[in-house]
Amino acid sequence: MRIGELSERSGTPVPTIKYYLREGLLPRGERTGPNQAHYGDEHLHRLRLVRALTDVGGLPIATTREILARVDSPEPPITHELLGHAMHVLPPATKGGSTADAEDHERVRALSERRGWQIHPEGRPSADLAEVIATYRRAGHLLDDDALDGYAATMEQAARVDLDVIGRVTGTDEILESAVVYTVLGDTLMAVLRRLAQANESARRSGAAPQDG
Amino acid sequence: MRIGELSERSGTPVPTIKYYLREGLLPRGERTGPNQAHYGDEHLHRLRLVRALTDVGGLPIATTREILARVDSPEPPITHELLGHAMHVLPPATKGGSTADAEDHERVRALSERRGWQIHPEGRPSADLAEVIATYRRAGHLLDDDALDGYAATMEQAARVDLDVIGRVTGTDEILESAVVYTVLGDTLMAVLRRLAQANESARRSGAAPQDG
Repeated sequence: MRIGELSERSGTPVPTIKYYLREGLLPRGERTGPNQAHYGDEHLHRLRLVRALTDVGGLPIATTREILARVDSPEPPITHELLGHAMHVLPPATKGGSTADAEDHERVRALSERRGWQIHPEGRPSADLAEVIATYRRAGHLLDDDALDGYAATMEQAARVDLDVIGRVTGTDEILESAVVYTVLGDTLMAVLRRLAQANESARRSGAAPQDG
Repeated sequence: MRIGELSERSGTPVPTIKYYLREGLLPRGERTGPNQAHYGDEHLHRLRLVRALTDVGGLPIATTREILARVDSPEPPITHELLGHAMHVLPPATKGGSTADAEDHERVRALSERRGWQIHPEGRPSADLAEVIATYRRAGHLLDDDALDGYAATMEQAARVDLDVIGRVTGTDEILESAVVYTVLGDTLMAVLRRLAQANESARRSGAAPQDG
């Protein structure tokens, strides 16, 4: 198809497509004339992935390019490792420098032990969790062990759904792509569902009529 | 205390404090001389809240200012309504224009009915969920009802923890402030815990050694 049809079928304006081509997020089409190129279904598919990562995932162009390079590179087809790779190219969950102290890190270690988690204690997600705990503390809101355990149990359930969904996908590229999409879009999905569930739980507890919460 | 001590005790550089003062995120101190002002514990507390919302929450200055105005305005002390207000000043979970179609909205309505949720079907969170479902679809990843129900059940559990934690707080200002902090920081907390739980679940299923996932 020509760039106009690619634009129409993907719902992406032509200047945006040209920008992605320049930035290397979308492979060039097959040249068919001095000012013409032919695009296939693989371009349509890639374009949708780019828009999902940038528009909803809110990822910067450089990070999106890095993720796409991972999706395109040949990797051993082991979900566990693929998921690890996908996590590594995702941006860190917290911004700013490290402010977690020894006690914050100890709380992560203790949580992980209580939950029986098989995770790397020095890995980035563990460090990120210590940062989040430190930020609650600095904001004057203690995240106590009950709350931490409650949220951890919740996310164990979410991770089972994640792995079930990703487990249904076949093919190395597809598994890695799904892991990235479900993780990035999944964060937004969780945030939205949590607001709906909060509004419901709040209405349920107060016995009030449903509201625009 | 003087601005130097405020800086030291909050771990915030003096130029950053001056920027917050100019932007109206932090109330002016009490003038004690031509170039001096006195700051109290309320400034220290507010400063921590501002940093939590901007640094970890990643909220823009304008949104942070809007949230603080809400925290400061007198509101009826009903948790349900306060939570609704808090949700309203938070930035939308999705960016870009609306692309959800009638079927996406119908899936939100059906989900809400299956879960027995008391929520406003035309509210912003409902519309946000339709957008997220549309984005999965456009990215070529169908979010089926099983997955949607699984994630929704997960977030019902998270919302119960949220309301339990917020329910322990007393005082109108404090309840609203907690609702905002737990919602904004909570999104980051969920994202980090989910990555840890994914790494654990992935390791558990593959029987592999823990890795830096």
